[in-house]
Amino acid sequence: MPDVAAYAIDSPTGKYSKTTITRREPGPTEVYFDIAYAGICHSDIHTARGEWGPVQYPLVAGHEIAGTVSRVGSDVTKFAVGDRVGVGCFVDSCGDCEECRAGEEQFCTEGGAVWTYNGVGRDGLPTAGGYSQGITVEQDYLMRVPDAIALDHAAPLMCAGITTYSPLKRWGAGPGKKVGVIGFGGLGHMAVQFAAKMGADVVGFGRTLSKRDDAVKLGAGDYVSTQDAARMKELRGTFDLIISTISDGMDLNVLLGLTKAHGVVVNLGLPEQPSTVNLGALTGKSRVLAGSNIGGIRETQEMLDFCAEHDMAPIIETIPASQINEAYDNVVNSKVRYRYVIDAATLGE
Amino acid sequence: MPDVAAYAIDSPTGKYSKTTITRREPGPTEVYFDIAYAGICHSDIHTARGEWGPVQYPLVAGHEIAGTVSRVGSDVTKFAVGDRVGVGCFVDSCGDCEECRAGEEQFCTEGGAVWTYNGVGRDGLPTAGGYSQGITVEQDYLMRVPDAIALDHAAPLMCAGITTYSPLKRWGAGPGKKVGVIGFGGLGHMAVQFAAKMGADVVGFGRTLSKRDDAVKLGAGDYVSTQDAARMKELRGTFDLIISTISDGMDLNVLLGLTKAHGVVVNLGLPEQPSTVNLGALTGKSRVLAGSNIGGIRETQEMLDFCAEHDMAPIIETIPASQINEAYDNVVNSKVRYRYVIDAATLGE
Repeated sequence: MPDVAAYAIDSPTGKYSKTTITRREPGPTEVYFDIAYAGICHSDIHTARGEWGPVQYPLVAGHEIAGTVSRVGSDVTKFAVGDRVGVGCFVDSCGDCEECRAGEEQFCTEGGAVWTYNGVGRDGLPTAGGYSQGITVEQDYLMRVPDAIALDHAAPLMCAGITTYSPLKRWGAGPGKKVGVIGFGGLGHMAVQFAAKMGADVVGFGRTLSKRDDAVKLGAGDYVSTQDAARMKELRGTFDLIISTISDGMDLNVLLGLTKAHGVVVNLGLPEQPSTVNLGALTGKSRVLAGSNIGGIRETQEMLDFCAEHDMAPIIETIPASQINEAYDNVVNSKVRYRYVIDAATLGE
Repeated sequence: MPDVAAYAIDSPTGKYSKTTITRREPGPTEVYFDIAYAGICHSDIHTARGEWGPVQYPLVAGHEIAGTVSRVGSDVTKFAVGDRVGVGCFVDSCGDCEECRAGEEQFCTEGGAVWTYNGVGRDGLPTAGGYSQGITVEQDYLMRVPDAIALDHAAPLMCAGITTYSPLKRWGAGPGKKVGVIGFGGLGHMAVQFAAKMGADVVGFGRTLSKRDDAVKLGAGDYVSTQDAARMKELRGTFDLIISTISDGMDLNVLLGLTKAHGVVVNLGLPEQPSTVNLGALTGKSRVLAGSNIGGIRETQEMLDFCAEHDMAPIIETIPASQINEAYDNVVNSKVRYRYVIDAATLGE
């Protein structure tokens, strides 16, 4: 049973500190891999701070995980020792329901997907995430990291990557389509890149223009302040697709108004309060308001291959484990450019 | 210039009464047809009563119109005298913008579609609708009524038909799909038929079960009271598609909860107040809340052909023009089974 260094938090108001956790030996179809990097997702913070419901403390968060296989079970066919792999938001599901069979394991209807942390694994034990030096995962829930993608870049793709790739793909971002991306943080800076690489005409939107240069470098043809009433008015009715990566403060009716007839607004955020929608804005122009959650294993692999093929990656700041607490505050205050990635080598220091 | 008998209303609180209106001689590419029947749509009532904004009175409503061509302009190629035709919610558009070229004339971005009544025609005069004995229309904005469809049945298809057919088609109603239809009135009783004929497994929903038998006859496999908390709970997460034909009183979050992951709720109603949506219900399961307006000319023709092929029609009550005022009250009070159609022969009596 591998004991590995990890960082855990004890309570909603606590701080992360060094600990040791025990991972199970890989079963016949399981893989154990040494974690190299783990991204810090805003969801980690919501969960760790108890903002999304009950938490089993101590909590080891992290669902943007990349590393190298070091042990495989006797019946593992998909991976070998030395393979570069990643894990995202879930590590298991029933594998047999309609959703699982469709490759949409995140929507498993038989007990639900097993979340990478704050879930309960097959062994009946609480799951623990990527802020640790190793993890044991059933082979069907691992992605292969293409050679062209460094492991530190691969980590954030497991959540921020798939969360933005999936709706852009589903809703037809591509040549001839005008796509707006609201918010330019961990998700937004990925959405801009994906949409641009898919061939769409991309416009970034932020409260201020402070991130304009980065957005343009990553493929945005324009970047607009949502506070600029004149520009916002001018852009009304011009978009095919809007991806909103923010959780608060943006009127959905304004976003719907930016789209053409049959336009689509995809919401990725989870605001705490119910939102108000003018159904007339939907019905009059046959518009769509969609939500989007991560993606399944197959689509996550497809996204990784897309990134390799198009030479794209998140912009990251690598930090030692000792800075996790500070990093959390920076994420909440939008100070990160654009994703923190924990160097797992520092978890034991 | 043909003078024709019509029924007009003078003010938001007025009553319809007999009048005469003048139609223009058909221009080179225009068709004049004798109206046989005109359906009464709830939109007629909202407009006539000033509930949807400014109205140019006297108003001749009616945008579910069917009849027989009696004159054609010199350059008309698509229709001949004696052809059975219909007109829906619009009678003109620019014909050249992106939407018009895509066959989505209702979303014309160059000045908008010209509505069949309470609009302004090419001639600069107010448009007048189907509560009249004849109308002149540009040939590109007419549908051909298939031989298999009686003209009285054809009339309501021009709005109630296309409004329900379009979203069911767009959102994939068909074999293997479970479709719910909320409300069983003029729109709902068409939606149930279309969804069933498309091959879907259809469940009707009404406040009470009073219309259950009719719904089952038209193809619903089941019919559920939205007040039946136990059944509503049991059905959670089981639908691929929900079409809501009602304007008030139904919590959108309940409808979203009826759908599976990736499920779609299409709203056809126009509630007066903004609605509240829990974005978590959209995002968590990648669900969709869509609006849908009528359809373009091409799709409306496709819908008519579908009705002919599948031997389906609205259930109508034919009334003389003298009963329009009473019929309006009955529509508002949900007493119609399921669409009133005015016999245009009675407009002159």
